[in-house]
Amino acid sequence: MTLTDTHLNTVSRADRYPTRTAEPLAPFARTEPTVWGGLTGPIDPATLAAHDSRGYSRYDGLLSTAEVAAFRAELDRLATDEAVRADERTIVERESAEVRSIFEVHRSSELIAELVRDPRVLDRARQVLGSEVYVHQSRVNYMPGFKGKGFYWHSDFETWHAEDGMPLPRAVSMSIALTDNHPFNGGLMVMPGSQRTFVPCVGETPADHYKASLTEQEIGVPSQRAISLLAAEHGIDQFTGPAGSALLFDSNLMHGSGNNITPLPRSNIFVVFNSVENALVDPYAAAAPRPGFIAARTVEPLVR
Amino acid sequence: MTLTDTHLNTVSRADRYPTRTAEPLAPFARTEPTVWGGLTGPIDPATLAAHDSRGYSRYDGLLSTAEVAAFRAELDRLATDEAVRADERTIVERESAEVRSIFEVHRSSELIAELVRDPRVLDRARQVLGSEVYVHQSRVNYMPGFKGKGFYWHSDFETWHAEDGMPLPRAVSMSIALTDNHPFNGGLMVMPGSQRTFVPCVGETPADHYKASLTEQEIGVPSQRAISLLAAEHGIDQFTGPAGSALLFDSNLMHGSGNNITPLPRSNIFVVFNSVENALVDPYAAAAPRPGFIAARTVEPLVR
Repeated sequence: MTLTDTHLNTVSRADRYPTRTAEPLAPFARTEPTVWGGLTGPIDPATLAAHDSRGYSRYDGLLSTAEVAAFRAELDRLATDEAVRADERTIVERESAEVRSIFEVHRSSELIAELVRDPRVLDRARQVLGSEVYVHQSRVNYMPGFKGKGFYWHSDFETWHAEDGMPLPRAVSMSIALTDNHPFNGGLMVMPGSQRTFVPCVGETPADHYKASLTEQEIGVPSQRAISLLAAEHGIDQFTGPAGSALLFDSNLMHGSGNNITPLPRSNIFVVFNSVENALVDPYAAAAPRPGFIAARTVEPLVR
Repeated sequence: MTLTDTHLNTVSRADRYPTRTAEPLAPFARTEPTVWGGLTGPIDPATLAAHDSRGYSRYDGLLSTAEVAAFRAELDRLATDEAVRADERTIVERESAEVRSIFEVHRSSELIAELVRDPRVLDRARQVLGSEVYVHQSRVNYMPGFKGKGFYWHSDFETWHAEDGMPLPRAVSMSIALTDNHPFNGGLMVMPGSQRTFVPCVGETPADHYKASLTEQEIGVPSQRAISLLAAEHGIDQFTGPAGSALLFDSNLMHGSGNNITPLPRSNIFVVFNSVENALVDPYAAAAPRPGFIAARTVEPLVR
């Protein structure tokens, strides 16, 4: 009887990905696939197989030069629009008064609303996740030259699971570069294959953690030991390439970026697609969910 | 008469490279050559011509694998030697108690004393500077993984001129990698050809500036405008390659490095050779010279 009860209880609210615990837990293998299959799309079989094994795939020239120019103009327009700057979804650096990120931008910009439904973008996400998808998060990022801060190693899924209540790693992010990514101006580093390992993190999530974590992460950080082991096993790749290139990567891929002292700023459009079969529930390791503009709590399947 | 007097005065203490001024001065062309000529050596003509134009040259496998292992063991020995750790020439990070740099290491380590006289090292420096040379500064650097700090853009000569009294840019540095330099673990970035331009910096040198500037430079920093112009004209190259590779670079080359969040630490041996015809005088822009272990004030030509 006791065994049955426990089992039932586990089924009703199973947490296959415990994290933010008081005591360290060892990294363990993920059970869900990276490429879920069942839907066709623009990704060719070899690229899809590589995505499945490495957890990411690159698409040079996803946007044309003209489109890059149009989106850069759109970003300039947004960053100087007083209403946008005053919006809570816009992250403005206190010191410089410069815009760093604008969240939920697929709702505030028609151009980007179109982009998230563009077959080059949407159909790749559907193909990888094997289902209809919706936008879990969208944002544009402006990273300045000279003093651009990087982001320490992390898995996005760890945060989305703990703080947003995303049940499983069935989400995929597309980062579209609007500026050239050199090896030396703070481009994304990834550990290919690391998406197959979940790394639980130590430490309780503080209230309103997202306000600090959007600029510098302190909770939800893997141990140096876990990072070393993953790097030794998988190595490190860097996302470089001309403006218009895109990186599609798994929600559980270990990634980070260095700082940028070069004069070359970086900006990109970042869209997270979640499977409609992976709708958010209550956060697994936070008192309250983050705001909807950071993690959409309603499933609105994208249609064209 | 007045003209003659002024002229004599200028000759007795000319400062062709004014810097650390209250008001900004525009960057200007350097008059001295990069490769001084007159001495033969191990650098082949094509590499020497490239060094002259770009301000640096790379030597893969300058040290053999066995030598790299021997020098790494020597660095480990030094970093754990209590007498070395307690020496004022050793920079220990306060937080972690880890050794970051050991200065004047060609005096404290016999192995490195031999290395600075090794023809592969010494004869390259003599060949570039066209004269006998001495060690202006030597050090070994330990840069940790995960939290390795970079160095912002700077010209070494600007500091050595202002704070040490080095009259002219007739010095050359050799950095020998003891660990692999990847594009993403904080390797040196250089602007090829930038050694031909001197960038005066704004701001008076504070007393004992070297104590802070060895970890983070605040004075002697070029303006963002100057860095942007140099980068636009010259571009940026990065020093990558396996352990044992060496970079020989001009004292006035604009260079810097990003931080290092990867688990891959970096260590290197760094030796600055100055021409015996370019002996230090009183600092050009500081109240007192830096200690001799940072900038040797006696000319002792290197002999084998």
